[in-house]
Amino acid sequence: MANSQPNENPNNSPKIVVLRWGHRPQRDVRLTTHVALTARALCASGFILSDVEDSNIEQTVKKITARWGGIFHFEMGTPWKKTIHDWRANGGVVIHLTAYGENIQTSDALNRIKNLNKDVLVLVGSQKVPGEFYSSVVSDFNVSIGNQPHSECSALAIFLDRFFEGKELSKDFEKAKIKIIPRERGKEIKTDD
Amino acid sequence: MANSQPNENPNNSPKIVVLRWGHRPQRDVRLTTHVALTARALCASGFILSDVEDSNIEQTVKKITARWGGIFHFEMGTPWKKTIHDWRANGGVVIHLTAYGENIQTSDALNRIKNLNKDVLVLVGSQKVPGEFYSSVVSDFNVSIGNQPHSECSALAIFLDRFFEGKELSKDFEKAKIKIIPRERGKEIKTDD
Repeated sequence: MANSQPNENPNNSPKIVVLRWGHRPQRDVRLTTHVALTARALCASGFILSDVEDSNIEQTVKKITARWGGIFHFEMGTPWKKTIHDWRANGGVVIHLTAYGENIQTSDALNRIKNLNKDVLVLVGSQKVPGEFYSSVVSDFNVSIGNQPHSECSALAIFLDRFFEGKELSKDFEKAKIKIIPRERGKEIKTDD
Repeated sequence: MANSQPNENPNNSPKIVVLRWGHRPQRDVRLTTHVALTARALCASGFILSDVEDSNIEQTVKKITARWGGIFHFEMGTPWKKTIHDWRANGGVVIHLTAYGENIQTSDALNRIKNLNKDVLVLVGSQKVPGEFYSSVVSDFNVSIGNQPHSECSALAIFLDRFFEGKELSKDFEKAKIKIIPRERGKEIKTDD
């Protein structure tokens, strides 16, 4: 997949795809939906829900993409080992977001990642991930967004904001049927119908 | 409360407290917990769950704070109108995070907020908030973290990261019983027991 996806992100930088590991269909539906929508809104190129299927998340993501525009790949059920293997075989790097990794603020990890100029798979787990995620068998980098416990959703948001240097927040989404016109007060929406 | 809380944030900048509006105790427990933990980890001074009580969230936040350190105010059940009124009466400003507001990337909203040098209450809603949130009766600023739908958790994370200029991610939390030593591979934890 690493070479087959359209590059829709800002800066013409390499593309990012988010792999969500450990989703539990009942319990995690809203949180995983927020992770997927964060990936989309902050200009990742796609989202992979590994190992399980959850049609709730698929429907929400596809409905939002159809309405709010842009190209966004959604995939579910693929075994995580296959995704990682294929990604690396296609020349991409794997970043594991974890509170234990190199601190994005105090280390040069982000620069080292960007200097590679390769497509990035961001691996976002839940509280207990398999130990091998930390090893070079799975990840090229372990990156922490601070070293305090908080949220995979927040961690992903800050990673994307820093990777794309803020430009992801001003991107125009192609073929949007609905668009917000930002304003100081009230709500303004432009629709094509 | 605006003047009674300790200022524990980086930069000696004004303090930030997060007000979560519209929490539904069963449905939102995990998402609101992530919002609260994001507030704490990214150096907000406190979190207010407005109008309702939810002991699940209180317990998680207090347990994490006791173990991972720092001073973090937790409050629940206070009517949002009272919090807003008291905050403003004490000289603080109210920022409503909403996809409809001034884009943090393309506007000068963040600079205007920071130039005020006042304590900040960040109002974080759910999908449908009362219309008055957008008006000057409630908010001094409506700020959007991009103008696409995504997540209040992600929006808060990026707002705090930009407000504190990244320094919140390297802050040492006082009186922590457990501490992560960031590393490229594996996990390293320091405990005081």
